[in-house]
Amino acid sequence: MAEEKTRITTDVDFEREGLQRGTLRVPHSRNSSAWGMILVPIVVVKNGEGPTLLLTAGAHGDEFEGPIALAKLTRALDPSELKGRLIIIPAMNVPGVQACQRICPVDGKDLNRSFPGRAGGSYTEMVAHYVSRVLVPMADAVVDFHSGGYSLNFAPCVIMHHLEDKARHEKTLDALKAFGAPLGIVIRELDDSGQLDTFVEQSGKLFLSTELAGGSTVDIDALSIGERGLWNLLVHFGLIAADHPAAGHGRTRRLVEVPHADAYVIAPEEGVYEPYVRIGDSVERGQEVGQLHILTSSTRAPVTLTAGLGGVVIAERSPGKTEAGDCLAVIADEYAP
Amino acid sequence: MAEEKTRITTDVDFEREGLQRGTLRVPHSRNSSAWGMILVPIVVVKNGEGPTLLLTAGAHGDEFEGPIALAKLTRALDPSELKGRLIIIPAMNVPGVQACQRICPVDGKDLNRSFPGRAGGSYTEMVAHYVSRVLVPMADAVVDFHSGGYSLNFAPCVIMHHLEDKARHEKTLDALKAFGAPLGIVIRELDDSGQLDTFVEQSGKLFLSTELAGGSTVDIDALSIGERGLWNLLVHFGLIAADHPAAGHGRTRRLVEVPHADAYVIAPEEGVYEPYVRIGDSVERGQEVGQLHILTSSTRAPVTLTAGLGGVVIAERSPGKTEAGDCLAVIADEYAP
Amino acid sequence: MAEEKTRITTDVDFEREGLQRGTLRVPHSRNSSAWGMILVPIVVVKNGEGPTLLLTAGAHGDEFEGPIALAKLTRALDPSELKGRLIIIPAMNVPGVQACQRICPVDGKDLNRSFPGRAGGSYTEMVAHYVSRVLVPMADAVVDFHSGGYSLNFAPCVIMHHLEDKARHEKTLDALKAFGAPLGIVIRELDDSGQLDTFVEQSGKLFLSTELAGGSTVDIDALSIGERGLWNLLVHFGLIAADHPAAGHGRTRRLVEVPHADAYVIAPEEGVYEPYVRIGDSVERGQEVGQLHILTSSTRAPVTLTAGLGGVVIAERSPGKTEAGDCLAVIADEYAP
Amino acid sequence: MAEEKTRITTDVDFEREGLQRGTLRVPHSRNSSAWGMILVPIVVVKNGEGPTLLLTAGAHGDEFEGPIALAKLTRALDPSELKGRLIIIPAMNVPGVQACQRICPVDGKDLNRSFPGRAGGSYTEMVAHYVSRVLVPMADAVVDFHSGGYSLNFAPCVIMHHLEDKARHEKTLDALKAFGAPLGIVIRELDDSGQLDTFVEQSGKLFLSTELAGGSTVDIDALSIGERGLWNLLVHFGLIAADHPAAGHGRTRRLVEVPHADAYVIAPEEGVYEPYVRIGDSVERGQEVGQLHILTSSTRAPVTLTAGLGGVVIAERSPGKTEAGDCLAVIADEYAP
Amino acid sequence: MAEEKTRITTDVDFEREGLQRGTLRVPHSRNSSAWGMILVPIVVVKNGEGPTLLLTAGAHGDEFEGPIALAKLTRALDPSELKGRLIIIPAMNVPGVQACQRICPVDGKDLNRSFPGRAGGSYTEMVAHYVSRVLVPMADAVVDFHSGGYSLNFAPCVIMHHLEDKARHEKTLDALKAFGAPLGIVIRELDDSGQLDTFVEQSGKLFLSTELAGGSTVDIDALSIGERGLWNLLVHFGLIAADHPAAGHGRTRRLVEVPHADAYVIAPEEGVYEPYVRIGDSVERGQEVGQLHILTSSTRAPVTLTAGLGGVVIAERSPGKTEAGDCLAVIADEYAP
Amino acid sequence: MAEEKTRITTDVDFEREGLQRGTLRVPHSRNSSAWGMILVPIVVVKNGEGPTLLLTAGAHGDEFEGPIALAKLTRALDPSELKGRLIIIPAMNVPGVQACQRICPVDGKDLNRSFPGRAGGSYTEMVAHYVSRVLVPMADAVVDFHSGGYSLNFAPCVIMHHLEDKARHEKTLDALKAFGAPLGIVIRELDDSGQLDTFVEQSGKLFLSTELAGGSTVDIDALSIGERGLWNLLVHFGLIAADHPAAGHGRTRRLVEVPHADAYVIAPEEGVYEPYVRIGDSVERGQEVGQLHILTSSTRAPVTLTAGLGGVVIAERSPGKTEAGDCLAVIADEYAP
Repeated sequence: MAEEKTRITTDVDFEREGLQRGTLRVPHSRNSSAWGMILVPIVVVKNGEGPTLLLTAGAHGDEFEGPIALAKLTRALDPSELKGRLIIIPAMNVPGVQACQRICPVDGKDLNRSFPGRAGGSYTEMVAHYVSRVLVPMADAVVDFHSGGYSLNFAPCVIMHHLEDKARHEKTLDALKAFGAPLGIVIRELDDSGQLDTFVEQSGKLFLSTELAGGSTVDIDALSIGERGLWNLLVHFGLIAADHPAAGHGRTRRLVEVPHADAYVIAPEEGVYEPYVRIGDSVERGQEVGQLHILTSSTRAPVTLTAGLGGVVIAERSPGKTEAGDCLAVIADEYAP
Repeated sequence: MAEEKTRITTDVDFEREGLQRGTLRVPHSRNSSAWGMILVPIVVVKNGEGPTLLLTAGAHGDEFEGPIALAKLTRALDPSELKGRLIIIPAMNVPGVQACQRICPVDGKDLNRSFPGRAGGSYTEMVAHYVSRVLVPMADAVVDFHSGGYSLNFAPCVIMHHLEDKARHEKTLDALKAFGAPLGIVIRELDDSGQLDTFVEQSGKLFLSTELAGGSTVDIDALSIGERGLWNLLVHFGLIAADHPAAGHGRTRRLVEVPHADAYVIAPEEGVYEPYVRIGDSVERGQEVGQLHILTSSTRAPVTLTAGLGGVVIAERSPGKTEAGDCLAVIADEYAP
Repeated sequence: MAEEKTRITTDVDFEREGLQRGTLRVPHSRNSSAWGMILVPIVVVKNGEGPTLLLTAGAHGDEFEGPIALAKLTRALDPSELKGRLIIIPAMNVPGVQACQRICPVDGKDLNRSFPGRAGGSYTEMVAHYVSRVLVPMADAVVDFHSGGYSLNFAPCVIMHHLEDKARHEKTLDALKAFGAPLGIVIRELDDSGQLDTFVEQSGKLFLSTELAGGSTVDIDALSIGERGLWNLLVHFGLIAADHPAAGHGRTRRLVEVPHADAYVIAPEEGVYEPYVRIGDSVERGQEVGQLHILTSSTRAPVTLTAGLGGVVIAERSPGKTEAGDCLAVIADEYAP
Repeated sequence: MAEEKTRITTDVDFEREGLQRGTLRVPHSRNSSAWGMILVPIVVVKNGEGPTLLLTAGAHGDEFEGPIALAKLTRALDPSELKGRLIIIPAMNVPGVQACQRICPVDGKDLNRSFPGRAGGSYTEMVAHYVSRVLVPMADAVVDFHSGGYSLNFAPCVIMHHLEDKARHEKTLDALKAFGAPLGIVIRELDDSGQLDTFVEQSGKLFLSTELAGGSTVDIDALSIGERGLWNLLVHFGLIAADHPAAGHGRTRRLVEVPHADAYVIAPEEGVYEPYVRIGDSVERGQEVGQLHILTSSTRAPVTLTAGLGGVVIAERSPGKTEAGDCLAVIADEYAP
Repeated sequence: MAEEKTRITTDVDFEREGLQRGTLRVPHSRNSSAWGMILVPIVVVKNGEGPTLLLTAGAHGDEFEGPIALAKLTRALDPSELKGRLIIIPAMNVPGVQACQRICPVDGKDLNRSFPGRAGGSYTEMVAHYVSRVLVPMADAVVDFHSGGYSLNFAPCVIMHHLEDKARHEKTLDALKAFGAPLGIVIRELDDSGQLDTFVEQSGKLFLSTELAGGSTVDIDALSIGERGLWNLLVHFGLIAADHPAAGHGRTRRLVEVPHADAYVIAPEEGVYEPYVRIGDSVERGQEVGQLHILTSSTRAPVTLTAGLGGVVIAERSPGKTEAGDCLAVIADEYAP
Repeated sequence: MAEEKTRITTDVDFEREGLQRGTLRVPHSRNSSAWGMILVPIVVVKNGEGPTLLLTAGAHGDEFEGPIALAKLTRALDPSELKGRLIIIPAMNVPGVQACQRICPVDGKDLNRSFPGRAGGSYTEMVAHYVSRVLVPMADAVVDFHSGGYSLNFAPCVIMHHLEDKARHEKTLDALKAFGAPLGIVIRELDDSGQLDTFVEQSGKLFLSTELAGGSTVDIDALSIGERGLWNLLVHFGLIAADHPAAGHGRTRRLVEVPHADAYVIAPEEGVYEPYVRIGDSVERGQEVGQLHILTSSTRAPVTLTAGLGGVVIAERSPGKTEAGDCLAVIADEYAP
């Protein structure tokens, strides 16, 4: 599949010095536009020699802290301060951002389940293919910004996977700590098919992700954590000087990991969820963490939910209304390296 | 219109002693059910003589603190402690609650713009008519619980209108203070057509409303404020003893009012809103309160928004994604009686 | 409202002798046709002097026995056999018939809740207005054919309302018996707002209706009952000779009436309904009539439903899948004149 | 209804001298914006004393020549050249223009069937009310620009109604001729309920309309006819000097009238329409004007359509695909005053 | 594909003795639930040694007799009576059952055209994969219950394929006869891609299916046939004693087979179908079996349909409304082994 | 894939002499028809020995000149005049034609991006497979008729690809010239994945296509060009005599080619497009070709578009309303062989 040629064209030149604001032109034939395209904003900043950092956000269209942090970076950065290259796509899933929803409305696909994509596929698949096959090969490291989106709220955090290769694990952990979010998460096992994370790691590049609050809102604190983390990483990777005034803030106060099975509190049926605990609270295994109200009935009693694991609550469902099978809370353990 | 007979039937007897859990049966003919109904839970608690309090919530299906507070009250209350009668409808807009949306999906109507309703109308109009014409006449006071819903976040508060009749204004202000929310709002002017508020006030009954946070989530603090306010009002109206353990908590720390015109910060075009200020912050007139990012363009600069009024921020838009004309923030003045 | 002029035009001449096949042209401006119309088939047969019978069907687009019986009548009838006039509209709700659904998809309205309509309204309102204000005044009697539609199955029957005026009641009862369906129903109380029935009766004309099976299918037996009833009525009203070979079949074997409140078995929640009794079965008050399976749960037990009335089952819900509030069964009493 | 107060606010001052670019703020509460508004662009130009001309377009969101002509006028006009006042709303149905459709997608209503509107109604009704009750009273004359939209193509023309009052008829005919479109149409009878035309005429003000091509496209010639007509009218009403370089072009070459009944060729069933004649062609009564191909069948022959009237073809259906009841062609007579 | 690991987890232990009621947790990320799941009820009953029978239903969400029969079996069965193991999934297509439709609304797929599925696919593909790759390997025989669903009505029957391997054919025929439905069908040729049937047979396991009435209703007789057949099979496979009171009823009275080509009566165009023959009737080749009424036209005559084959009518279209290409009737031959 | 057996059946016999009107029966199981099919009209005309020409149209359901030209040919042609065989499918995408849209509404696919299709796929894939694997192998040449559809208007033209094989290029160019459209286009580079063109060429057969106007209308001139071209090709391929009265008209006046990159004028953002140039006009590189009006704003100036290439305008966007990324105009160079 790697040899397929992308159908996406662009007006930026990845080798040119200075700051360029351009677009990716993604072909999108549809009823209202036989020869239409979707235009995806891209910014490239290059100054002399140095590493290349690929910064992406907006894979899910209801997660806004990352896109804003990247858009602000393109305006705050003085290209002459840079040593190396930044490739920045603040809103990969443009139709999702316009619709304020996770899934791309144009093809019904989840971009972060579609890597490495297909050159001849739908919008989401073509973007995934372009990022994987054209941009990742240019990059030394990739940071992909996420938030909880409409359905989840997260403790603002920076995330890495537990890597088999010890040296690469430590190198990534160093970058994670440099980001300086109050919480760092190391994910041990994961259902990672189709994620950018896995593709980048398999390409031997360094990869970090974030979860910056959620509820499809823009959280001032989480945005601030994301912006500072971004500048901190530019220093960490040697792209800007260590004494840059925007960098050097924040510090990682806690490292946790998410074990797979019992970390998730799942709704057994439809209802409205009332949490008893807040994000950041510690819970014991078996402790009641909330109840589900059956508001369509005057007689049915609420259903109580309990923690399947002791630890700290790192995420909760945001909307009160809940369907059977929805994730209501996520509990994490302390990180044991 | 008042003489039209409701098409809604119920299995509760409003004159019976004790606690009854029943339903309102609202006729709803549709493609999948020619003779179908929608069942709306209702709870009636009566014990001896005393005032009648009508407690409603869920007019908008994406506001959950009120419905939960009322549902919990029906389980926490010992009927023998009561002196008088409670009529409780936790989820008036049942189809909206099931769909997690403000507007009733069955007829596209906003229940709180549909009072006093029509006996021969759609679901929303029939429910508005029943509440207005059957239940309000039984009540001495009405409390209708709201939150900000999907699109808005509010400082948790209890709300009343500025009333022309000074005595009734003061009596309502006493109840508002008794509720004990940290913030109380007196609305001076309003676009009140079709609201339950106006109908109840015109009926000469006491009326209070709330805004308990928002973002379509269940906020632990706002829920707690709502629950305590509920018990405090039961004491205030003499329905339970003043020393009931659930009552007596919370106190109103601030009273503000919302002037009509410049209190609202409005989005001039489509974008993603980044707030600079938090709910509860004080702002000056002309101060920058946020900016709108045009994430579909790599070249267009963000659009800055300023406050049209000095005061305190009492509400903000919750979802980052914003359309032209959306309300981004609401600013309030100190209350000057 | 009566003086409003219809916007509907037609190419049939109601005073012309012989058989005419034409259309009603109902204006319907929409996105795909600014000056569009909906064409409703109409057939007029006139031969000399005699009464006028208005025959309508297809008010609900998922009830097919009536439309077929009327369409076949227009081909089977020899105009020279007739004494008087027939005005026949087999499919009043043409868009509903095309969509196979009760509600008119063009405006979301139920035609049989929209009488007497509005000249300046939507499609459904214009058709209701035309039938009420143009056609009913020409008629001596009106027969409107219904079946159970998608959601209900009925014992094939002919229906009349209990009328205050004793003479008109008896005259209608004679016609009902002449129709010769195995079952005749006299409805005592009803929620009749917007029905053609009420409008015709208030106009002092004789009115009959039917329920010919259901489930949105074409039932051979029910169709046969409807066709014979049609010919029997032509004889009864003197429009054809008593010895016409198509008439004189069938006889009414049972007369029942539907009391209002407890005749309906209502689903208390969502599930799949398993009936224990068949249409036509006798049931006792309190007898179990079926159960609701909660197929989304492996642990929740089925919910049992009981009859609120002793009598005969005249209708049942057709689709297994059921929402809270759906009508599961209707029970009738023997008719006591 | 006239005394109802509009809920719409604006930032333009109709009495201020000079050119103002502002918006109408139309309240629009919805699931994604509880306190949202729709912003409708409005431009007011005033210079000294003189008549007020109200210029509107975009009642239907798929008709673009009028909106463009008005938008260009606001940029081409030097306010100091003006004597009097222009009130310009290029896109009354903003949501329709965004959706490229006739009907307003927000409430499903046709703005030009909704006059004089309701202050407490939906978006379309509020805009109709504002134009009728706030703006028309300020105006001496109103010109409302239309084109054929998605479904129709028109010979570019200027239009008036046949008026009972002879003097007003002649005065309007003078303005129509001054507009200088190649074709002028006088409509004798019409189904005019809810149109702006009728409301303005009943207010005793002069009213003109246009049909500037169609097919939801922007036709260069029709746009040019519309723009010149606009400047010609400014001269005709004395708002600019007669020797203004933009005016004085074009001349009305033909006047026709549309009789009501047989002028319309209507599709008897669904198919794809092949016209035999072009807009502007003369046809005889009974002449074949096209045929309907039944492309879903390999055996059914095409259905031939004939003219019900001799005259000139002034409009034709634009999309090939046709439903039963669609208008395929409109034929006009020579105007006989 | 077989080696792909399922993403579905479950709380039942297939090796544990006794009756367990649990769920399959199928990951389903969507806009309203980023980390959501769909919960599919599963019941496992095991008692000592013996064969394993896999019982499935609800592949199509509008076929209810099978799901009810399986749900009732889990409550009627005394685990201590069993010798072996039952794995029961009454509603494989849970979202389809909730929507009352054949196709899974979550991904638009037909479960019984999706076998053997994909571990990394959509809901339907993951369920197909789990059943094929995890459950079928545990089973000695599989029975998958179907009914006609919304669009078809079937003579209640048990079904097998004509198998090449004579011994397996006879063994399956024995089981088919043991089921005891009044009608047994042997399908000779079939378009079987993606069906569970084919997958199971290719796995060398015994497979039976059913068609238990249809019309999306719950037929009392067909349900009874299904329930009895289920108990009869438990005896036949030695899972319960031959003298169990629930078994031993019903007997197969007729065996037929469906030849491929001319057995199907197909609608040549859109209309409303009136059948002349009933399910179970014998027809001759060329006999008229019904007609299609064109209710949108007052002039077009009905279209007559004839049988392309002599035999017995085993199924008919249920809804009267019919599109071009719909199957109106299915005719079967006597089985000639 | 070639060996997969089609699931499509037909009642035409491709080897029979004379004219046959039949259908392709394409299986299409769906909620409303479990065993449904879609019927695609096909006409086969055969007379003695001679080449086979496959004539297709309606791949996109909003392009009507081709379908009409083919449907008319089947009625105008006297089979005895023919020498060889014609296989004619006027509306390959029947559901798209019924919906008047490019994309097949049944599966959301673009037929002309789906070749060579899949035997076991959706409707569009099955039709693509049938055409590719069953019909193309029978044909010596294939002509597939297109128009611009809803979103584009084209100068009526006949089209071929630049072919590597010089002899085949010249042979195709001869056929293109014989067609006799005023404009001929040779496409040099193209994004041709999934097109019928490429498949046929790779099969070594001659292939031509057309673009006959657009805007989803039926253009009299373009239809005439298409019809004449069809007859001219029948002569060119020796299927009818050179002196056939319907042939011999029209001549190719201009040959152009479309270079890939800068030939397309693309909308940078949403707006309403006003063209300055007409189809057929010559433009210089850098010349202003139109502007985009931002009708939702009263303050934002229009955005000007310029030609990226000098040449002739061969196509323009048809609807005024435009999204970011839409193709506004296509410019071609003179053909340099």
